[in-house]
This record gives sequence, structure tokens and C-alpha cells, in this order.
Amino acid sequence: MPYIALPEGFPGIRSLFMYSPDTAKPLNDLVQTLLHDPATSTLTPGERELIAAYTSSLNECKYCANTHGAIAKYQLNGDGDLVKGVMTDPSAADISPKLKTLLNIAAKVQKSGRDVTPEDIDAARKEGATDREIHDTVLIAAAFCLFNRYVDGLGTWAPDDPAIYDAIGKQRASEGYLTKPFKIAQP
Amino acid sequence: MPYIALPEGFPGIRSLFMYSPDTAKPLNDLVQTLLHDPATSTLTPGERELIAAYTSSLNECKYCANTHGAIAKYQLNGDGDLVKGVMTDPSAADISPKLKTLLNIAAKVQKSGRDVTPEDIDAARKEGATDREIHDTVLIAAAFCLFNRYVDGLGTWAPDDPAIYDAIGKQRASEGYLTKPFKIAQP
Repeated sequence: MPYIALPEGFPGIRSLFMYSPDTAKPLNDLVQTLLHDPATSTLTPGERELIAAYTSSLNECKYCANTHGAIAKYQLNGDGDLVKGVMTDPSAADISPKLKTLLNIAAKVQKSGRDVTPEDIDAARKEGATDREIHDTVLIAAAFCLFNRYVDGLGTWAPDDPAIYDAIGKQRASEGYLTKPFKIAQP
Repeated sequence: MPYIALPEGFPGIRSLFMYSPDTAKPLNDLVQTLLHDPATSTLTPGERELIAAYTSSLNECKYCANTHGAIAKYQLNGDGDLVKGVMTDPSAADISPKLKTLLNIAAKVQKSGRDVTPEDIDAARKEGATDREIHDTVLIAAAFCLFNRYVDGLGTWAPDDPAIYDAIGKQRASEGYLTKPFKIAQP
């Protein structure tokens, strides 16, 4: 049961977006530019969604980790095993050395911005990460420290059925974040 | 030294907003509606800034704690002692019992959304907190878990001079978050 009265049939942050359209607008604009738009980052949408899903998994946010894991899968041509690998242990996953160093930075940011060290940044630069990519990684990880807390701090509904996350993942990967959420039958 | 090349003369998040206007826009729209606009919340701008400053102080984010502490002071008719009291120990500060229960929720959110309990929510309701006020408290605390990480995770400049924070506080309290930041002479 959510801690406040939210519209039924919308899980996780979708219920909060329906409840509070004034704050939903900038939050959706933020993820649209940060995760989806091609122009704003030299990281691929798949890489950016992996950073979002990984941060959410470190925050143990069931709704966001499953949702962005599913979006990452669709952005990575359906490679669900790769997503699972990153969530379990990025250092052993089949991803570029650069992305591994960026996920290390994301893990530091998840704990505290103050945990990021010059050595973490140097390691990313040595693998070719640019200022923009370091910036985007820090902001994506920081943004999911917001979203995860918003979703769990108000006790929103996190479905158990993997098919629901898959449907959301498919929608967001193709449409981005600015189209309307669809209703889901609540058990 | 910031971890990436940022424009000089702008401290904290101001330098990041100059660096990345695409993400600055939704982030500023978010704080404008969440902290400043009168229509969106029944909490006063002063109360909302106190939640932002308190969360930032728990995250040990020098730039955000000092900035939003100064904005809170200007929103509270210059009462800097009240702001200091809240930052030191909200339970002993001269604020309403309702705001104390909301700051307790903010402190839980600062650690993790999952730390908020039904008892925390009940305590706020008993002091008259509405759904909207509980929602806004959770989202403000969650948002500052983003801003604090963004500012510190990229090693931005946090001035030592209290007069700088006071000038920023005065600007934001009167103008809100959508006007241009001013340059500051860097030591």
C-alpha cells in the first residue's frame, strides 16, 4: 500500500507522475535528455540505461531496477543476459573497459558524491572517457538516487510479474519518456 | 579542482548548469516548482528550503547546505538562528511539530527510500501533514540526494566565504531558480 492516495493501475513512479503532474514534467524532461535523446551524450542509450539500472539495483529499488533493466535490454537488441551480468558484477560483464570504469564511478555516486576520487576519474580517462561522459555518468547515477528514493520513500506499487516490466521497457525504449504511461491490471 | 573542465567564476551547481544547459533546464524547472512556486505546495517556501538545506547537511554537501541554508534564511525573514538550529538538531529547533515529523521523513529518505516506515508517515499525519506535504517532503529530500551527489561527485568549487552564500541566498529567495547565475571572483 502506498503511503499516500495514488491513482490505481499505475506502478512505481508512474503513479507519482499521475499524482503530481507539475513535478512529473521536469523529471520526465530530465530522463528524456539524460537517457534517451541521441544528441546530448556520446554514451549510447543502452549504456546510459545500464548505468540507471545498475544504480537502481545498488539502491535495491525493485521497480526502477527492473524497469530500466528492461529498457536497457531493448536498447541493447534484446540482450537480457548482458543486463543481468552488469547488475550482478559489472567487472565480469561483457562490456567495454570504459563502461566498467564509468559504472565504478556510478557506484561511488550511489553511496555519496564525496566518495568519487581523482583516481576513479583517472581510471575512466585512461579508458577514453570524455568530460561529457564522466558528467553524464555522475548525473545519471545521481538522478537515480532521486528516482529510487521517490519511488520507495512513498511506498509505491512494484509489480512482481516480469511481463509488466518487459512491456514498460519496450514502450520506453521505443517511445522515450514523454508519452503517456498505460494502465496495468493490479492484482 | 573540479573533475571536468567547468566555466570559471561559478561555484557548485551553477558551474554544472553553465556546462550542461540541456540538463540544467529541467533541473531548474524542478526546484522552481518544488521549492519556490507558491501554487504547488501548502508548505511555505521557508519550510521547503529548510528540508532542502537539512538534507544537504546530512549529505555533507557544503555548497548546497550553505546555499539553501541562506535561501531558507531569506525566506524566513532573515532568521539565521532558526536555520542553524534546524541544521544542528531539528527536534530541538523552534519549528512546528508537523515540520519536525517531516524532517524526520527527510532524514530517512536521505539514507534510503526504503528506510521510511508506516510509523514515520503516521507520526506526520498525527501532526496534520497532508498527502501533498508528505509527497513534497519525500521528493525534496530525494531531489537533494541528486543535487548533492551531482555537485560533489564532479568536485565542483564550494566557496569558503559566507558572504557568497548570502548573496546567492538573497538572489534565489527573491528571484526563484529561473534567472541567470552571477559570476563570482574565484580566490
